[in-house]
Amino acid sequence: MTVLILTCEEDVTADMVILRLNAAGVPVVRLDPADLTRGVALSVEFVQGVSHGHLSVAGRLVSMHGLRSVWVRRPGVAAARAAQPSAWLTEEASQALYGMLRGTSARWMNHPDAARRARHKPWQLRLAQLSGMPVPATLITTFPQAAREFAERFPDLVVKPVSGAHPQEPPRAVPTSRVAPGTDFAAVAFGPTLLQRRVAKRADIRLTAVGDRLLAARKAVAADADPDEVDVRFAPSLSPWLPVDVPPHVAAAVHTYLRGAELSYGAFDFAEDMDGIWWFLECNQSGQFGFVEMDTGQPIARTIAEWLADGTGVSGSPG
Amino acid sequence: MTVLILTCEEDVTADMVILRLNAAGVPVVRLDPADLTRGVALSVEFVQGVSHGHLSVAGRLVSMHGLRSVWVRRPGVAAARAAQPSAWLTEEASQALYGMLRGTSARWMNHPDAARRARHKPWQLRLAQLSGMPVPATLITTFPQAAREFAERFPDLVVKPVSGAHPQEPPRAVPTSRVAPGTDFAAVAFGPTLLQRRVAKRADIRLTAVGDRLLAARKAVAADADPDEVDVRFAPSLSPWLPVDVPPHVAAAVHTYLRGAELSYGAFDFAEDMDGIWWFLECNQSGQFGFVEMDTGQPIARTIAEWLADGTGVSGSPG
Repeated sequence: MTVLILTCEEDVTADMVILRLNAAGVPVVRLDPADLTRGVALSVEFVQGVSHGHLSVAGRLVSMHGLRSVWVRRPGVAAARAAQPSAWLTEEASQALYGMLRGTSARWMNHPDAARRARHKPWQLRLAQLSGMPVPATLITTFPQAAREFAERFPDLVVKPVSGAHPQEPPRAVPTSRVAPGTDFAAVAFGPTLLQRRVAKRADIRLTAVGDRLLAARKAVAADADPDEVDVRFAPSLSPWLPVDVPPHVAAAVHTYLRGAELSYGAFDFAEDMDGIWWFLECNQSGQFGFVEMDTGQPIARTIAEWLADGTGVSGSPG
Repeated sequence: MTVLILTCEEDVTADMVILRLNAAGVPVVRLDPADLTRGVALSVEFVQGVSHGHLSVAGRLVSMHGLRSVWVRRPGVAAARAAQPSAWLTEEASQALYGMLRGTSARWMNHPDAARRARHKPWQLRLAQLSGMPVPATLITTFPQAAREFAERFPDLVVKPVSGAHPQEPPRAVPTSRVAPGTDFAAVAFGPTLLQRRVAKRADIRLTAVGDRLLAARKAVAADADPDEVDVRFAPSLSPWLPVDVPPHVAAAVHTYLRGAELSYGAFDFAEDMDGIWWFLECNQSGQFGFVEMDTGQPIARTIAEWLADGTGVSGSPG
């Protein structure tokens, strides 16, 4: 039974996981959909009520019946490196590949439908509420007056994108910023704006969920930190990420969230306030984990390899 | 409780349904996501574990708690008609709108996730098989040799796109065509190709499923029809669509398919062979129905209106 990893050529994070799987003797095939139809070929037939499919990657055949799991890491655009790429070929190749894979009984990390749904920030916030997580008061609006009233109720606000990264090539992360006092909000009418009560935080928390296993890390905020530096991704900091225990009620809420979202992997960001409460900020279904593993030494890559291999001895592998 | 219809400005099919809902006194709001942020505004807040959202369309407010159902008909690209459209604004507006709607308890026709999944042809063929429908032998491949062997087993073949319409603006339907004898198939290596055994048909069947209700129509193939005219959408024909009863075993299979696909609407195409067997060709989750209603007089628009209104008296409305 083979693990299929869909990712682009340069992906050191995938390399870390593949190393573990190789060491455990679990068959792995790494495939970039961009290599359809150069280096990657596919075939699936439907005859007399039965379906058979296989992929060929660099000359190696993988049967769809022999797929154990599919890890959707950072796949390229289907057929992007074909001899004559086109929007039409991409559409045809994408539907053929993913349509075939969707017909297998493999486990997904994460299933494309769940991944797509999980990107919707308003849906995330609602699910987090329903899962029992504290969510900072948030408004998404195109009404300037609604923004003004919200700023009166919650004077200390941050603004962040509704959707995530800016869709340029390569995508650009847009930092969360503090809203200056006296902001007018008239421009809110021109595009949905996400305003959120700023959590006066003493630490950032990154919780990586892999199946049922939760690995949390904590990065303390310096006592003299500038309160305008709200985004841990952009703030200058010398304090490292350190492993931290997950409080049981947070663990229960995270499990509820993952079940509701049908995700087998999620990178949760929390802000820890002065009372030690973890406030839900977001859950990135494809969040990076390499930087946490480097700082904390937590075995995230190994845990992912174990999940993909479905408990077939990866944990016994070296390191 | 309001019915929300997401569609573009010119959509006479939506007009037919809205007429029914209006006549029955069911509140309806028609919204084109392209009109965000000009004419359409939204706001949703998440405070203390509770979420409240509303839309404003041409000055009319709709609460998210008051949504009965959402019909995703032919929505425009979010914010496409904004004062300053951009890929970034489209992404932000789309995530805000659909993210908010995904948090409601409204019924969907069809839910965006189910709709997206349902477009995958290989997945459709597999689900049809599993639902107990006869599926003509089909191959999707990038291996020329696989295509050649398939053509030996099934010498009378048609070729059709894997993905559907060609992604030009506006999208162009690609006709299903008969494969000429002696075709070489070398070009299959350059893009996934869908080959299917041609069903020698005596009629085309269009079955429109609306919730649990099935409305089928049949268009006879003339005895002297050219066997190369395989695609009913492009074949010249004077015979009209006529209502036809759905055989009980087909109805059972269609219900199984719809449950598996989590679709509340689907337009199924079958080919009826000389023995009267209905062969599954495809299920279009957003298939047109106006032409069938015109020919057959079947009350498809009214049935959709009833489903959207959830049985609150539309059936008693005029005509």
